Amino acid sequence: MTLLDLVAAALDEDVGAGDVTTEATIPADAVGRGVVVAKQDVVVCGQDAARAVFAEVDRRYGGTVRYVEKAADGSAVARGTTVAEVDGTLRNLLVGERLALNFLMKLSGIASHTRRYVDAAGEGGPRVVDTRKTTPLLRDLEKAAVRAGGGHNHRHALYDGVLVKDNHVAAVGSLTEAVRRARSAAHHLLRVEVEVGSLAQLDEALASGADAILLDNMDDTALAQAVRRARAAKPSVILEASGNMTPERIGAIRHLGLDLVSAGGLVHHAPWADLSLKLR
Amino acid sequence: MTLLDLVAAALDEDVGAGDVTTEATIPADAVGRGVVVAKQDVVVCGQDAARAVFAEVDRRYGGTVRYVEKAADGSAVARGTTVAEVDGTLRNLLVGERLALNFLMKLSGIASHTRRYVDAAGEGGPRVVDTRKTTPLLRDLEKAAVRAGGGHNHRHALYDGVLVKDNHVAAVGSLTEAVRRARSAAHHLLRVEVEVGSLAQLDEALASGADAILLDNMDDTALAQAVRRARAAKPSVILEASGNMTPERIGAIRHLGLDLVSAGGLVHHAPWADLSLKLR
Amino acid sequence: MTLLDLVAAALDEDVGAGDVTTEATIPADAVGRGVVVAKQDVVVCGQDAARAVFAEVDRRYGGTVRYVEKAADGSAVARGTTVAEVDGTLRNLLVGERLALNFLMKLSGIASHTRRYVDAAGEGGPRVVDTRKTTPLLRDLEKAAVRAGGGHNHRHALYDGVLVKDNHVAAVGSLTEAVRRARSAAHHLLRVEVEVGSLAQLDEALASGADAILLDNMDDTALAQAVRRARAAKPSVILEASGNMTPERIGAIRHLGLDLVSAGGLVHHAPWADLSLKLR
Amino acid sequence: MTLLDLVAAALDEDVGAGDVTTEATIPADAVGRGVVVAKQDVVVCGQDAARAVFAEVDRRYGGTVRYVEKAADGSAVARGTTVAEVDGTLRNLLVGERLALNFLMKLSGIASHTRRYVDAAGEGGPRVVDTRKTTPLLRDLEKAAVRAGGGHNHRHALYDGVLVKDNHVAAVGSLTEAVRRARSAAHHLLRVEVEVGSLAQLDEALASGADAILLDNMDDTALAQAVRRARAAKPSVILEASGNMTPERIGAIRHLGLDLVSAGGLVHHAPWADLSLKLR
Amino acid sequence: MTLLDLVAAALDEDVGAGDVTTEATIPADAVGRGVVVAKQDVVVCGQDAARAVFAEVDRRYGGTVRYVEKAADGSAVARGTTVAEVDGTLRNLLVGERLALNFLMKLSGIASHTRRYVDAAGEGGPRVVDTRKTTPLLRDLEKAAVRAGGGHNHRHALYDGVLVKDNHVAAVGSLTEAVRRARSAAHHLLRVEVEVGSLAQLDEALASGADAILLDNMDDTALAQAVRRARAAKPSVILEASGNMTPERIGAIRHLGLDLVSAGGLVHHAPWADLSLKLR
Amino acid sequence: MTLLDLVAAALDEDVGAGDVTTEATIPADAVGRGVVVAKQDVVVCGQDAARAVFAEVDRRYGGTVRYVEKAADGSAVARGTTVAEVDGTLRNLLVGERLALNFLMKLSGIASHTRRYVDAAGEGGPRVVDTRKTTPLLRDLEKAAVRAGGGHNHRHALYDGVLVKDNHVAAVGSLTEAVRRARSAAHHLLRVEVEVGSLAQLDEALASGADAILLDNMDDTALAQAVRRARAAKPSVILEASGNMTPERIGAIRHLGLDLVSAGGLVHHAPWADLSLKLR
Repeated sequence: MTLLDLVAAALDEDVGAGDVTTEATIPADAVGRGVVVAKQDVVVCGQDAARAVFAEVDRRYGGTVRYVEKAADGSAVARGTTVAEVDGTLRNLLVGERLALNFLMKLSGIASHTRRYVDAAGEGGPRVVDTRKTTPLLRDLEKAAVRAGGGHNHRHALYDGVLVKDNHVAAVGSLTEAVRRARSAAHHLLRVEVEVGSLAQLDEALASGADAILLDNMDDTALAQAVRRARAAKPSVILEASGNMTPERIGAIRHLGLDLVSAGGLVHHAPWADLSLKLR
Repeated sequence: MTLLDLVAAALDEDVGAGDVTTEATIPADAVGRGVVVAKQDVVVCGQDAARAVFAEVDRRYGGTVRYVEKAADGSAVARGTTVAEVDGTLRNLLVGERLALNFLMKLSGIASHTRRYVDAAGEGGPRVVDTRKTTPLLRDLEKAAVRAGGGHNHRHALYDGVLVKDNHVAAVGSLTEAVRRARSAAHHLLRVEVEVGSLAQLDEALASGADAILLDNMDDTALAQAVRRARAAKPSVILEASGNMTPERIGAIRHLGLDLVSAGGLVHHAPWADLSLKLR
Repeated sequence: MTLLDLVAAALDEDVGAGDVTTEATIPADAVGRGVVVAKQDVVVCGQDAARAVFAEVDRRYGGTVRYVEKAADGSAVARGTTVAEVDGTLRNLLVGERLALNFLMKLSGIASHTRRYVDAAGEGGPRVVDTRKTTPLLRDLEKAAVRAGGGHNHRHALYDGVLVKDNHVAAVGSLTEAVRRARSAAHHLLRVEVEVGSLAQLDEALASGADAILLDNMDDTALAQAVRRARAAKPSVILEASGNMTPERIGAIRHLGLDLVSAGGLVHHAPWADLSLKLR
Repeated sequence: MTLLDLVAAALDEDVGAGDVTTEATIPADAVGRGVVVAKQDVVVCGQDAARAVFAEVDRRYGGTVRYVEKAADGSAVARGTTVAEVDGTLRNLLVGERLALNFLMKLSGIASHTRRYVDAAGEGGPRVVDTRKTTPLLRDLEKAAVRAGGGHNHRHALYDGVLVKDNHVAAVGSLTEAVRRARSAAHHLLRVEVEVGSLAQLDEALASGADAILLDNMDDTALAQAVRRARAAKPSVILEASGNMTPERIGAIRHLGLDLVSAGGLVHHAPWADLSLKLR
Repeated sequence: MTLLDLVAAALDEDVGAGDVTTEATIPADAVGRGVVVAKQDVVVCGQDAARAVFAEVDRRYGGTVRYVEKAADGSAVARGTTVAEVDGTLRNLLVGERLALNFLMKLSGIASHTRRYVDAAGEGGPRVVDTRKTTPLLRDLEKAAVRAGGGHNHRHALYDGVLVKDNHVAAVGSLTEAVRRARSAAHHLLRVEVEVGSLAQLDEALASGADAILLDNMDDTALAQAVRRARAAKPSVILEASGNMTPERIGAIRHLGLDLVSAGGLVHHAPWADLSLKLR
Repeated sequence: MTLLDLVAAALDEDVGAGDVTTEATIPADAVGRGVVVAKQDVVVCGQDAARAVFAEVDRRYGGTVRYVEKAADGSAVARGTTVAEVDGTLRNLLVGERLALNFLMKLSGIASHTRRYVDAAGEGGPRVVDTRKTTPLLRDLEKAAVRAGGGHNHRHALYDGVLVKDNHVAAVGSLTEAVRRARSAAHHLLRVEVEVGSLAQLDEALASGADAILLDNMDDTALAQAVRRARAAKPSVILEASGNMTPERIGAIRHLGLDLVSAGGLVHHAPWADLSLKLR
């Protein structure tokens, strides 16, 4: 589902057979102008989606809206800042307003929330990456929002990365064998990562030939020990930690030598940012 | 977009050309069983979506997963409760796991969050209703989650309710005229609501023949005054209040005599609930 | 399904793998011009659909057709009047001709037919409204044609209005209880209408709190009595009559004080109007 | 667009976000039964579409409806006849009722109307065939309804038949050359038909090698003359007449020796038949 | 599926969530230019598809690519010839390159391969036509490639031609009856062709009234005999031969008097032509 | 596009408004049985697609076809072998026959062709892998056919592997910088491969930190030298060779120590295999 398809389906959802109020009250040839304003400090994200909303409204109903971005995705702006200017067919401004804001508010919320994790990791700390815990159908946009907030992305989906998890290991009966199967079936441009929950499993993972290891749900002490052990055995292995990561905890473990810290909370605990569209 | 379409598109997003890891490690004929468990106290929502995920995985790839709901949408369960049992084709369990959980976690999050607002309003207080600030493409599900949490829904979209907002009034130049146009164009089963921001506007709205009035962004004192004034002038008018409504504030204004309190935060400030699928 | 989607699917239906005749006989760079002419007195409707047909043909096959509307939707024109002028890529004119006319003829037919009912109701008489008896997939267009003919619309679909019909009442076992449930579940911007077939039911409906009452299949005498009784009991109730309404019958009952008369025949007994496209 | 796709889109149109009334009043587990009854004498058509409506409702919302056809497409039944029996999930019966009836009423209307034309042509008279003047997106169904009424179909669309019309001839500048081009480009299983409006054109058409000739808008005398002339010159040529054909006129020209008479009115002047679904 | 839909789905397939390499290495505002060059002697085909690829990339991601065709579909060009020039947004050139070439290489391969068959048939020989053995979803394009190579098309699909094959005859139990049924059901612009495998069947086919006869899998001697016999009995019958037709065999039977020779190999034995896109 | 979507679209293409011949000749309730037979030695592929064709035909038109696979994908069978047995609704067998065979013939062709390359590489030789030169919309199926033939897959698409090609290097101006950018942007489970055309570029690639190197269009001598040089500098680097690879050439270079040989010809030079469906 491309961004254009997504926006079209979302307009079907919110407008459907028509905006009764706007069609009743606003003449078809009326024009207007307005601004999208940040009502709190925010890292901006969602400009392409917002622009696409008005373009699709124009395509469906005729008329023209101009959407001029005043703050790029990823820029941090203070409360009161104008994020975009819009002008054109008034009906279209009113029909598209809510959906455009829904994209901007949700995505800026994720970008702003991610920025806190990234700041906690600091210069030289581990990469902060997202997970597959994203809103169904919005993954592309939410992963872009994580990047706008300064984070990085984990694999996009089940098709572009190999991650052998505890359930796979349990089903196969052997971590070593599970890694071997994955390595054999995956194409040569995919690395193989395996999840471990203990130091014993870590040792098996290091011996298995896995390229990367996910240290899942370990406390700070165990994490520190695991990193030392892994680096000693296989310096090039990629080390990721996960499990209820908050900015506070990331601050505490940022010096351990991890390559990545992954946090579903970048997306699923991000409240929407507050922005509004004011017509003049 | 029906639930079936939504689930299909979401599987395209997360599985696409295939789950490299699972196909590599798990034999096609392996079977398994497991449970979906609440990892915190939660109001459950999303059972239909979760079931539909596994059904669609079966339809695409063959195999059979049985999904047995153990706690109905809307039920409040304690941490550790089994919410569903699954068993069947192991590959399908692993392929559908994340998406099924994403639905359950997001929607149970909204239901649980809404329950706090509804409890604050209490017996005999105003209805707590949602807004059009919902995640693009997920509105049906999110509105169902609000109901699961004990809330009610506002209009679904622009097509099934008339709400004359400040921008419409400004464009028309007169609240009275805007209401008149809306009444004339809307079919006879739609009521007309108009947004007001001051007592002066409230008076005009009461005289305009509007069926419902949205008191937007008034402080508690102004709200109390507005309700008294409106009830005196037109006892049958429906009164809704909105603007940064939290459970705390709802507790403070629950006795004013409002019919409804609307809060975007039911949806856009709801963190996901924590649930997991454990295979045995 | 937006108008654009509808037009695209209709071109798939009529052109599919290609217009064998036109591709064989007409050079790709030939141009032409022509007029759409009314071959009978007609109330025009369908201009947007006709324009969209040629735009979609252009988008698919290249080339350019200009479609200039000469009579607006809703205007009554005499036989022989030019309704639109077209010029541009000749192949595209020939490929789109039939579909554009099919829209214009069908929709102008409904608009023209509706006008007869509306004239019968006259100034100050009841609103003439349509029903859900519309051609599958064409409801938006057919309802617009009813408006073009001077009629009004009933609810658009099952999602934007509450109408408790005899089958609902029978299933619940009580009209009063059915209305109560509907009122409780519907959002506050939806009125509740209930269908009655007798004066006894009317009394129950008036007491039930329904906002509107559909007087179904009553003869003229019963209708007159029902209106008097309802107005006496509850002056603000909305009263609709239905059941084999023709222009003649509407003329006979226009003074009874009904708010609306609904007639499926606006759509399902409207013959297509006769229009043709003549190339010069 | 297959029948399944069509039915799905039509349910999107009529149900969309949900049937507010039925969901509010009818419990999910209630069951019911009923009959579809003809309220006038009618040639039945649309049984597959009606059955598909309930099947799609079941697929979307769960539940089961059994649809038992009691009169086959094409059978003529008297007023009061039961056309189908339904039983199962009551909500689904109510949600699908209108759409199922819309198909049955529209298609039975066409079948019944066509039967009058076919009866007028009588045994041994010309085939009565339809045209491309059909409702956008419903052509397959409407052409099936024409067959149910005893008529035959003309080409389905622009892709499965060659018909050189006046506009093609005018653009090429020569009927003979237009036919030559069409013959050369069309595959060998397509015949070439050409439209003529005069005896002079008829002579050119007979000499051109066209396989079939459409005699357009000629009066009865001219038609008789054209048939004699054509049969004398080329006995095997296929002769079709068109232009405001009614049952009455078909009765008058049925003995002329035409192969086909085509009439858009089979479809575009057919009022819907009256059928209803009564629950018990 | 129109060409635009096909190209869009093919980009979903090859680009999906994004071109990781190009997005990482190439700035969004970089521009470039290049040429599509034939790396072998080739009959060109696929220009519209290639142009549509870049147009769709532009539509999705922004930016502009200009695609200038330098050799028309159907033209034979020598190795080293520039087939098209491209310039514009560099990212878009790189994202669309492979898909555009895949269309050009596959379709030019078919056009080039077909040319060999057509040359073997020579002036005055039988038409060389394709079959329904085409790549699923690419039939329109592959049939256009056959025409670009100088061949003609057989029926497009099951809907636009009647071909009674051995399986139909066997099921009916009589060739004569099968032809009769087909003639009766097909509309009057469709000819009826029947497949025969022996001279005895040929005689029955000639008597059956079939318009065309497919002589399937006969050796050269039998073919010659069949043509003589058919022409003697019914001079106007259309005669087609099929069964492992190669250019060599076509050369051998080109003088027999067949109307058509059909060969699935035009499509299914055509290797892709070699073309490349070189940026400068 | 899932396999189910692909099959549905392909049936739209080949059947569309209906199979005129089969509907005319075969009664709706006739049943039949038959076998799919290999008419040459073949490596089988396409069984899932063939089965899905008949399932979709059943879903659309009613009726039931049973498809029983007698030779698994990837098995090599001799001419005359029964590959599948079918029985059920005769119309459905005839409607689905061609499409099912088109899938089986095309995909078995690729599997059989690939087997020759794989045999040439032999035990212990390099992996034979495909490229992105695949038929638009059929990539999943064609890549499965390569695996059925014993080959392996390269990356699936632009989204699941990083391959820095000459055009990227040229645009960036430095191979080292291009690799650095790719590494930085790609997620940690993707390796970075870079294409080189000379030994000088190879040295830069080895120093750049690329995980894999594509040796493009080198002759056998250069390839041998490149492998030695690379292994000396960086033993763990993955080495792939490409450029007009045939079975013969692969035989000649199989001992050089390459990890992979990629060949577009697995797909684009594979003639369809010959299979037929015979009804009894």
